[in-house]
Amino acid sequence: MTPARLIEAKRDGRALAADDIRALIAAYTAGDVPDYQMSALLMAGFLNGFSDSEAAALTDAMLHSGRVLDLSALPGTKVDKHSTGGVGDKVSLILAPIVASCGVPVPMISGRGLGHTGGTLDKLESIPGFRTDLSLTEYKAQLDELGIVLIGQTDDLAPADRKLYALRDVTATVESIPLIAASIMSKKLAEGIDALTLDVKCGRGAFMKSEADARALAETLVGIGTAHDTPTVALMTRMDVPLGCAVGNWPEVVESIAALRGAHDDTPLMTVTYALAGEMLALGGVADTPDAGRAKARAAVANGQALDCLRTLVAAQGGDPSVIDDPDARPGSAPAYEVTAPADASGYVTDLDALALGWAAVDLGAGRRTKEDTVDPTAGFGLEHHIGDSVAPGACLARIYGTHTDRMDATAASIREAFTFGPEAPEPSNVLMARYSDDGWTSVA
Amino acid sequence: MTPARLIEAKRDGRALAADDIRALIAAYTAGDVPDYQMSALLMAGFLNGFSDSEAAALTDAMLHSGRVLDLSALPGTKVDKHSTGGVGDKVSLILAPIVASCGVPVPMISGRGLGHTGGTLDKLESIPGFRTDLSLTEYKAQLDELGIVLIGQTDDLAPADRKLYALRDVTATVESIPLIAASIMSKKLAEGIDALTLDVKCGRGAFMKSEADARALAETLVGIGTAHDTPTVALMTRMDVPLGCAVGNWPEVVESIAALRGAHDDTPLMTVTYALAGEMLALGGVADTPDAGRAKARAAVANGQALDCLRTLVAAQGGDPSVIDDPDARPGSAPAYEVTAPADASGYVTDLDALALGWAAVDLGAGRRTKEDTVDPTAGFGLEHHIGDSVAPGACLARIYGTHTDRMDATAASIREAFTFGPEAPEPSNVLMARYSDDGWTSVA
Repeated sequence: MTPARLIEAKRDGRALAADDIRALIAAYTAGDVPDYQMSALLMAGFLNGFSDSEAAALTDAMLHSGRVLDLSALPGTKVDKHSTGGVGDKVSLILAPIVASCGVPVPMISGRGLGHTGGTLDKLESIPGFRTDLSLTEYKAQLDELGIVLIGQTDDLAPADRKLYALRDVTATVESIPLIAASIMSKKLAEGIDALTLDVKCGRGAFMKSEADARALAETLVGIGTAHDTPTVALMTRMDVPLGCAVGNWPEVVESIAALRGAHDDTPLMTVTYALAGEMLALGGVADTPDAGRAKARAAVANGQALDCLRTLVAAQGGDPSVIDDPDARPGSAPAYEVTAPADASGYVTDLDALALGWAAVDLGAGRRTKEDTVDPTAGFGLEHHIGDSVAPGACLARIYGTHTDRMDATAASIREAFTFGPEAPEPSNVLMARYSDDGWTSVA
Repeated sequence: MTPARLIEAKRDGRALAADDIRALIAAYTAGDVPDYQMSALLMAGFLNGFSDSEAAALTDAMLHSGRVLDLSALPGTKVDKHSTGGVGDKVSLILAPIVASCGVPVPMISGRGLGHTGGTLDKLESIPGFRTDLSLTEYKAQLDELGIVLIGQTDDLAPADRKLYALRDVTATVESIPLIAASIMSKKLAEGIDALTLDVKCGRGAFMKSEADARALAETLVGIGTAHDTPTVALMTRMDVPLGCAVGNWPEVVESIAALRGAHDDTPLMTVTYALAGEMLALGGVADTPDAGRAKARAAVANGQALDCLRTLVAAQGGDPSVIDDPDARPGSAPAYEVTAPADASGYVTDLDALALGWAAVDLGAGRRTKEDTVDPTAGFGLEHHIGDSVAPGACLARIYGTHTDRMDATAASIREAFTFGPEAPEPSNVLMARYSDDGWTSVA
């Protein structure tokens, strides 16, 4: 394996052999291939593409660059979910307790917010006391005992991905579908899962803006799962407007708790959550079909078992379970600012810009513009009106939370600008766009 | 100037602003932009291209990364020549004394052999005692006194080019026409020249294999010269077969001396040399046209003044001038091996593979496979038959020189394989393919 020859091959549009990819990633992880050769290869691959088999080999090499967990001694089919990231996407917080409470073990290793999108890890850490830094021994023990565990990435899982991601971030090679797919799948497969569901978001508030890109990413992700004998199902879901009303870490935890109490059952948020839960329960072998799984999931919310599971999870990982029953008791739960609709805002909300709202939340302190930024766990906002709602001038559009009161005028202005009003309600669009598995694309309802 | 934004722009096919290129190259030379960002940008540019104005800005930035010589205090129009490299290309050794002896100062800073091609610097150093490491002060003084000076690259001229070239070499980004052009022109313009001729070689034994690539390179090079107010003329010349019969450093010096004695006047070697000399004399203002310059150049060989100039040059730079008059007296001048034509080799030489012969010379010790290789100054061979010659079985095809007698069987085999024989002589082809200047492409004869 001569790095310059591999760069040349990729530059000239030729596919790299799996053995060469493995040797390259191993040498790169060990520091024997310098960053400047890897970045040239990544750019060549960004522009000339990587084939499905190259993406699978890359995933495999990254997966085996560190420890690969073996959960086979634990009972049950372990199933996880990954979202490609959106605005207001608190699905994991609701989904994991639903699925685990139905008897499918959920070992979930989550990431932080990236760009304008939130991350499950930041949301979990907004729960007072909640520990996301369990050791891998604690992780396995809790999964065995409770059937659910949610932690952050550890240094010994897929270290090549971390090193490659840091390099891609500064060399304009992030937005490559095969590289994104390999990054996601290497981390997920290292968790020791038996099956995986994917929420591939598509639209203005997602990283994949076009349906063509989202479809390509879904296909690459599922292809890699299949190549690794890990049944994988992807749902492509719409991310033009925020998912749910809360944007920000603690505000989204509060909305998730309400959702587990059944408060949001007929919203796009729960449509996505139940659809993913149905897939996970079917993959986990406790439902015959995704539809049957979806019914089980609805029941788990209706009968309170999912909320119980969240309470148990929070307590097990050091969090204060009393916040589950009284979220308003947490300091920082009171709104600090109210955004009102402008005087000419009569009619309906015809559009709601998820991307703008995502960045507004980041700038308020809910996310990071640079690696050095610290997150304010309470920062965020709750929309009082969503797309399609009728609004009167002066009505409350949103409530803003957090400690950065000096930034709230700016946040309010951004929120107001993210709304578009019109005389007629827009056609409702289905948040579920399509489903992709080994059997190909199918529609979902 | 944010490097990642510039990489992104080039990745997406957008042109970079001249100011951004200047800032980037300055920061890279200073070590403030890391290699891994530069290599990603180079690969993006390799694949998406650099425009003519980007190439000119890149050249300018590289040129000004170090010292730029000012020779304006010296009389005359200083003219240099650059060749893109070929096999048996000893033109500089013959051309520089011709042009200087006609009154046009020639300040020439040359490079070493690269890949399968030879370099003027290695050839000069095969002359016993010849110093190529003059200081820039000595360089100016000798140019002033003799009107001719031939040295190697110094660390303070275009240091960005050196750093970039080393990076390109290990990241498969060498063969980019704008990058090649910027590298050549930044070094040449740093010499302080007033005008430049280019020998853009095209064919099997050149770096530009296709006529389209050679034409593009010529156009880019001349465009950069024009953008820097330096009149530049390019001749595109054929490099499918070796130029002349000698390949290797000292063997090529010997052939050059013979050429300056008029021994090769009607060969492609001298056709190229005289054509370039004609251009240089016209650019230097001592001939009204290239054709008139060519006649002057022929006269300079015929009357011995060019050979006198070489003798003076060798003596001035510490070399032993007696080798000019008796090349055979130099140790290592005796052939050590004779290559004979195979028994079935009757008829004519119909082809002679310059690339194979170039590598054969490198492997014998005339060039370097790796940076660590040392060059044997006497290594090489002299072809006894060239394309179109009639050959009898068992005739002497070549004589091999040098100290690595253990490698000569292999060299002989490579030389034999480089010959193709046939019953009819091939159509002669003109070594001069075309001429390019600011006025566009014209034919040359």
